[in-house]
Amino acid sequence: MILLDGKKLSQKIIDGLKEEILQSEKKMRLAVVVVGQNPVIQKFVAQKRKTAKYLGIGFKIYPFPDDISTNDFRQKMAVVTHNKKNTGVVIQLPLPKQVNVSYILNSVLPEKDVDMLSVKSMGKFASGKSSILPPVVGAVKALLEEYKMEYKKKNIVIVGAGNLVGKPLAIWLLSQKISFSVVEKDTLAPEKIIKEADILISGIGRPGYIKGDWIKKGAVVIDAGTSEEGSKISGDMDFASVSEKAGFLTPVPGGIGPLTVALLYKNLFILSQQK
Amino acid sequence: MILLDGKKLSQKIIDGLKEEILQSEKKMRLAVVVVGQNPVIQKFVAQKRKTAKYLGIGFKIYPFPDDISTNDFRQKMAVVTHNKKNTGVVIQLPLPKQVNVSYILNSVLPEKDVDMLSVKSMGKFASGKSSILPPVVGAVKALLEEYKMEYKKKNIVIVGAGNLVGKPLAIWLLSQKISFSVVEKDTLAPEKIIKEADILISGIGRPGYIKGDWIKKGAVVIDAGTSEEGSKISGDMDFASVSEKAGFLTPVPGGIGPLTVALLYKNLFILSQQK
Repeated sequence: MILLDGKKLSQKIIDGLKEEILQSEKKMRLAVVVVGQNPVIQKFVAQKRKTAKYLGIGFKIYPFPDDISTNDFRQKMAVVTHNKKNTGVVIQLPLPKQVNVSYILNSVLPEKDVDMLSVKSMGKFASGKSSILPPVVGAVKALLEEYKMEYKKKNIVIVGAGNLVGKPLAIWLLSQKISFSVVEKDTLAPEKIIKEADILISGIGRPGYIKGDWIKKGAVVIDAGTSEEGSKISGDMDFASVSEKAGFLTPVPGGIGPLTVALLYKNLFILSQQK
Repeated sequence: MILLDGKKLSQKIIDGLKEEILQSEKKMRLAVVVVGQNPVIQKFVAQKRKTAKYLGIGFKIYPFPDDISTNDFRQKMAVVTHNKKNTGVVIQLPLPKQVNVSYILNSVLPEKDVDMLSVKSMGKFASGKSSILPPVVGAVKALLEEYKMEYKKKNIVIVGAGNLVGKPLAIWLLSQKISFSVVEKDTLAPEKIIKEADILISGIGRPGYIKGDWIKKGAVVIDAGTSEEGSKISGDMDFASVSEKAGFLTPVPGGIGPLTVALLYKNLFILSQQK
């Protein structure tokens, strides 16, 4: 089994980006909106901050209190997103229960929406008219390309149709006219469909849900699930058993996670160049 | 085999709509943009006009010449879509080769976009934030519900990921968290996947492409493909052989086609009520 080293590839992407940034004259700054004090969120933010520093890109955190109301939040977002110094805006998810998430995500101007979670960005993407890809899609694509994995004429199975992983990946495959299957909670025998996958991509956030005996011998397994067990981040795969069957496997952490950070900055760069 | 009578159901939907329209005080008018003189397009337009007349809804055709430029077209669209009398706007497809189709489709204001083909409408739909469904999705949903067909926990297969049928259906299933598979040109053995479908929905526009021996005994087969063979409209199914295997089958014509017209007017009504 070959580990698909997301960390190494993300460093390669970031180094390439650093070169491009040096040659560019655009000033960039990523605004990161953080609600509350969740330690896992803080960890993700720290990774982004480290990368920004390495790239020589501005980085500004906007901390909001845990009990913020939707209206107050949206008003504050207007200031963040219209600030000309902020060329990209990220809202760290999840948001507290009282907040209307999509209303807040839609406050991000499309030309700064590096995460592509607003309705406008989603529309451009679903219509095949976006110049950038949702970070997780860019991450999966980069990984498949880096390891020279042919993904056409393969049996691709996506586990989970969530807004952050499964749905954007499925929409990308639709726009590429590449066949695939989606396994969701209603699927009667998920292990049967998963077992036929040449390329398996999972993003459900259930630690260790997929076992080795569900995996086709030699399959490419991309684990885009992240669950927090205490301070530990786990993927959807039961790593020990899956690694005995898969031909290629992304670890968690060190797989898709760092790649999405790299692709986020790639999006920031692409959007900044368009101005 | 039971024929899924789209014509009958569309009449039922239209009659229900007529009642609602009578009780409403909103004035509605559908603007239909027609480029050139294609006889098949004329036929579709005539069906829409007939339904508008039956419903007591205004109907106005905007005829444009076959050699219209994209810029000229977009300027003329601004007049059509901003005209307050037009509460819904449809652009009959396909458009001539010289026209930038998505640029023209994006000219339709979201609150009048009954066909849901603009980037903004697509974004709302893909984000699960749309009050209406693309007509073909509404048509398939109405048909499955009318015949009390359970579509969760079923093996749903979509043939073709085109913008008008497969893609919107797939995005709808994603947002409903219902599992499905997409068969596209890259699929190695499409007949194998198609043969496992409990519910098969096809929209590729290849007349008679799917044969009876590809169909699971008793399957629900929804043929949303339309091809023009001279003045005859054909579906994707080889009707004679498929009807021997399917449990339920939509005819072409008389299946999804008339339903999409009914759902188009339902969309017009819903959007008009929101103003």
